[in-house]
Amino acid sequence: MKSLTEYLTFHLLARMGFENITPQIAEIVARSGVQEGLVLVNAMHITASVFINDDEPGLHADYKKWLEGLAPFDASPSRYAHNRTGEDNADAHMKRQIMGREVVVAITKGKLDFGPWEQIFYGEFDGKRAKRVLVKVIGE
Amino acid sequence: MKSLTEYLTFHLLARMGFENITPQIAEIVARSGVQEGLVLVNAMHITASVFINDDEPGLHADYKKWLEGLAPFDASPSRYAHNRTGEDNADAHMKRQIMGREVVVAITKGKLDFGPWEQIFYGEFDGKRAKRVLVKVIGE
Amino acid sequence: MKSLTEYLTFHLLARMGFENITPQIAEIVARSGVQEGLVLVNAMHITASVFINDDEPGLHADYKKWLEGLAPFDASPSRYAHNRTGEDNADAHMKRQIMGREVVVAITKGKLDFGPWEQIFYGEFDGKRAKRVLVKVIGE
Repeated sequence: MKSLTEYLTFHLLARMGFENITPQIAEIVARSGVQEGLVLVNAMHITASVFINDDEPGLHADYKKWLEGLAPFDASPSRYAHNRTGEDNADAHMKRQIMGREVVVAITKGKLDFGPWEQIFYGEFDGKRAKRVLVKVIGE
Repeated sequence: MKSLTEYLTFHLLARMGFENITPQIAEIVARSGVQEGLVLVNAMHITASVFINDDEPGLHADYKKWLEGLAPFDASPSRYAHNRTGEDNADAHMKRQIMGREVVVAITKGKLDFGPWEQIFYGEFDGKRAKRVLVKVIGE
Repeated sequence: MKSLTEYLTFHLLARMGFENITPQIAEIVARSGVQEGLVLVNAMHITASVFINDDEPGLHADYKKWLEGLAPFDASPSRYAHNRTGEDNADAHMKRQIMGREVVVAITKGKLDFGPWEQIFYGEFDGKRAKRVLVKVIGE
């Protein structure tokens, strides 16, 4: 069994944002030499996501509005008990649960085995600082 | 390490629907010859899900109503920016995030290692056309 | 390829609750002898979750309130068709979908490869009875 572990760092300037990281993941998979296997891609921070969806700016705007409706940002400790700790990011912990922590993608014949529109995104819900994403390839 | 990759195609007649695909996944796992390992099952389209829950028609009706409440269908471009592209399925991209893209299931002694009620479903949120599901088995 | 399969049992006294299970998972990973690989941790019951987030009591209180808002408990069969079966836990099947069934975690140099705040939780949404969690380690 082969394996390869890499860490990517992202620093988004907005509080909430999505970045297409498919090229970086494809490059790591190619470099691993794995022909048949799996790649795990996960946020290492708990106010961020890795998810697969469409690279369409309108949809990303819709996601932001929708997530804000489901879990509104509110820095005050009266709405969110978590914000009594001095944090202001309780909403980000919720948005991340809806969008998910990780994806597992099949590697077939040495490549990401994707449908026509699948793209991997880093999702940030408490940005303006550097955070890491783990990429783990296993297979043969 | 052994591996097996298969693609299943589903064509649901309704816009939203759930289909129990456990028998097909169990058959692929058996055919792989893997005794100890993992199977990844994921939607290859970004308005569909693969998830694990109960095969109970009342619950499925509840899921549809609940998802419609959280992310209502609205073809107009005024509610969802994504629908300015000519698409009408922005809601489906949201429903899919709640229900998830994929499941990873343990294979133990050659079989899906499931609790008493676990069943694998294909979840469709923008149906009336054919879509694919990827099944990747790895292990020994 | 090495593998190890373990089953953990949890019996939470409240209907909804979160338990940090990171020490148990770390011990199983150490015992497996796997240096590079993956560990799958999943709820075997469909009204429970395994998820990764922060071990902060205020956040957990926020999660409970938020999930109750998105999918309120209501034992009556008028709100949820599932409860016509004699069950009262339709809401728990929804809460579990938001929080997720499973996590897949990288094992690097024999340890859970985690960011600074990542902790694994068992999430219970229909408690007061024993339920199982599956832990499957694969790698080398």
